[in-house]
Amino acid sequence: MNGGDGPNSYAQNSSYQRGAVDVAKPIIEAEISRKLDVKHRSSPFRIADFGCSTGHNSFAAMKIITEAIKRKFKTDGQTSHIPDFQVFFNDKVTNDFNTLFSSLPPKRLYYATGIPGSFHGRLLPKSSLHFGYSSCSLNWLSKVPKEVADNASPAWIRGKIHCFGARREVLEAYSNQYAKDVEAFLDARAEELVAGGLMALIVPAVPAFWNPNTAYTSITDFDILGSCLMDLAEKGRFSKAKVDSFNLPVHITIPQEFRAILERSDNYTIERMEIIDNPGKRTLTVPTDRASFFRAVFEQLLINHFGSEIIEELFHQYANKLAASSLFLEPKNEKSVLIFVLLKRKPYDQK
Amino acid sequence: MNGGDGPNSYAQNSSYQRGAVDVAKPIIEAEISRKLDVKHRSSPFRIADFGCSTGHNSFAAMKIITEAIKRKFKTDGQTSHIPDFQVFFNDKVTNDFNTLFSSLPPKRLYYATGIPGSFHGRLLPKSSLHFGYSSCSLNWLSKVPKEVADNASPAWIRGKIHCFGARREVLEAYSNQYAKDVEAFLDARAEELVAGGLMALIVPAVPAFWNPNTAYTSITDFDILGSCLMDLAEKGRFSKAKVDSFNLPVHITIPQEFRAILERSDNYTIERMEIIDNPGKRTLTVPTDRASFFRAVFEQLLINHFGSEIIEELFHQYANKLAASSLFLEPKNEKSVLIFVLLKRKPYDQK
Repeated sequence: MNGGDGPNSYAQNSSYQRGAVDVAKPIIEAEISRKLDVKHRSSPFRIADFGCSTGHNSFAAMKIITEAIKRKFKTDGQTSHIPDFQVFFNDKVTNDFNTLFSSLPPKRLYYATGIPGSFHGRLLPKSSLHFGYSSCSLNWLSKVPKEVADNASPAWIRGKIHCFGARREVLEAYSNQYAKDVEAFLDARAEELVAGGLMALIVPAVPAFWNPNTAYTSITDFDILGSCLMDLAEKGRFSKAKVDSFNLPVHITIPQEFRAILERSDNYTIERMEIIDNPGKRTLTVPTDRASFFRAVFEQLLINHFGSEIIEELFHQYANKLAASSLFLEPKNEKSVLIFVLLKRKPYDQK
Repeated sequence: MNGGDGPNSYAQNSSYQRGAVDVAKPIIEAEISRKLDVKHRSSPFRIADFGCSTGHNSFAAMKIITEAIKRKFKTDGQTSHIPDFQVFFNDKVTNDFNTLFSSLPPKRLYYATGIPGSFHGRLLPKSSLHFGYSSCSLNWLSKVPKEVADNASPAWIRGKIHCFGARREVLEAYSNQYAKDVEAFLDARAEELVAGGLMALIVPAVPAFWNPNTAYTSITDFDILGSCLMDLAEKGRFSKAKVDSFNLPVHITIPQEFRAILERSDNYTIERMEIIDNPGKRTLTVPTDRASFFRAVFEQLLINHFGSEIIEELFHQYANKLAASSLFLEPKNEKSVLIFVLLKRKPYDQK
C-alpha cells in the first residue's frame, strides 16, 4: 500500500475498503451484542486488526468494535467492569507505521500499539487476544505461487499477471497457495485468541459464476492491468519477458472455496457467514478514481519490478481503457462481493 | 532523534547511549536473578522500553532482559513455565518507527510491538506490564518550562539555550518542570505495572558539584551549542532574539534531586540506586564524533526553530570549539554520570 497521505496514498484512495467497514458495521454490532460473553472477561480487552495499512479505515473499524463492546458491558449490567481496551494494529514490516501512528484519532477508547510482521505467522503471545479483525487483507498471498513464476512449470503464466482466464494449472496453483496462506493465518490466530474469543473477517470475493462479457470484478482489473503492461512492453518500455515474470501475489476467492477452508479448521466454530455487497465499489465509478484505487494498492509492487518511470503512463493507460469500455462505465456491472465471517475460538481442550 | 540509518542518524551516533546499556547489563542481570518472582507469573510476560528511539540500543537491552528472565525461570526450576514475552517499544509519535520495525533483530525471544505517545502519560492498560525499562530518556522534559520562554518572567533566559550558569529562577523553573515530568512518568507506570513488577531506570546526571574550569559534562555541551548559535546570530544568520526564544526541553539531574523525587512517590520501593560511570562517553573523544552525537539528538529541534540551512555550519562550528579546547581534548575531564535505579511496584492495596 502507498504510505503517507498524498494524492496517490492508500489513505486518500481507499473508499472501496471503507465501504467494507460501513457495510459490516451493523453486523459486527449485532454479533458483539449477541455473542460476546462479558461476564467472564478480565481486563484489559485486547483487539487486533490484521492488515491495517496506514489506518484510515482501521480506525473506523476499531471505533465500531470498542464502542459496541462498551455498550455490551453496559446493557449486561457490567458498567463498573468496562475494561481498558488495547488495540494492536498489524501490517507488514514495510507498512508506513509512521503515518498510521501520526493519524491516530486523538479521542479513542483504546491504548494503541503497532505490530510489524506477516499475519501468516504468529504476532502475539499465546492466548492473549480477545477479538480479531481483518478486512480486505486475506486476499494477499504470502508469495506468488512458485509454479506460476517457474517457466518450466505447466502453471507458468505468459503475458498475464494473474490467473484470470489462465489454464487450470495456474488457477490451481493460486488456489493452493491461498488455502495454505489462509490456513496459516487461522492457525496463528487460533494460538493467539483466548478460548471463546471472536474474530470478524471481511474477505474480498467474486461470485462462483459471473459472465466477463456482461460484468466485471476486481479480477477483471488485474487482467486490464496486465494488458496495459503488455501494451507498454509493445511500446518498448520493457521486455515482454519482464511482464511474464511479474505476477500478483493476490487471490480473490469464491464463497464456496473460502467456506471449505474454514471448515477444515478444528479450532473455530463459524458463528455467521454471509455474502455482502460492498457500497465502496460505487465510490469508484469514475475511471480515474478506480485507477487511483488500484495504484494506491499495487504501485509499490509495480515499482519494485518495473521501476518508477513507467507508473504514470501505466495508470493513465489503465484509466483510458476503463473509460473506453461501456462495461466499466455502468457501475451496476461490478459484481465483486465481500464475505463476512464471524468465527469463535473453541475451548482449548475441546477440539 | 534523527530517524533512518544515515550518517547523521541516531542509529549511527548513539555509542554514548549504548554505553549505558553495557554498563547496566550485569546489574540488571543480577537484579532479575535476585528479585524477580517467577513462581507467581502468568504468561505472557510484558516488557516495555520507554524512549526507545529507532531501537539501536533498545534491542540490546531487550535481549539482556528477556534472556535474564528466561534464565531465572530455568534456575528456579520453572523451565516448563517459561512465558511468551511481549515487548512494547515506546517513543513519541514523531519517532521513526518505520526504521525501528525494519531493524528488529530477526532472532529474538519476544513478540515486538510499538507504542506511539508521550511517556509522561498513560500508554498501556492498567496492571498489564511486568517489567519497565527506560534508558537516557527521562532527561527529556515534556516542554520547556513556561517561565523560561516568557520574556516577562524573571526566569527568562537571554542568549542561552539552557539553565547552565543561569540565574536561580531559571534553574528552579527547569528543576520544577523535571520533578513534575518524572512524577507524571512514575504515576503512569504505577498504573500500568502489576503489583511486584520491576522497573529499571538509567538516568543521565551530573555530580552535585563539578568545576567547569577543570571538567565538563553534557551540560557544558548545551552551553557550547548555545554559544555557537550566538556566533551564528552575530554573523547575521538569524536574530539574537531567535536564540533567546530557543530553549532545550532537557534537564540533567543530580543524584540527590532524583532520589528526592523517587522518595516522594508512594507506589514504589527503591530496590537499588547507584551512580554508574558511562563507558559510552569514552567513545566520543574526537570532537567531530561528539558533535555528531549531539546532532543526532538535537537536529530536529534545531531545524524546527532555526531552519535546516544553518545545521551544517552550526555543528562544524561546534566541533571546532571542542577541538580548540584543551579541556575537551582530555576525555577524563568528562564528569557526566548515570543513575541506575531499580524500582518495585508496591501491592495495589498497600501504599
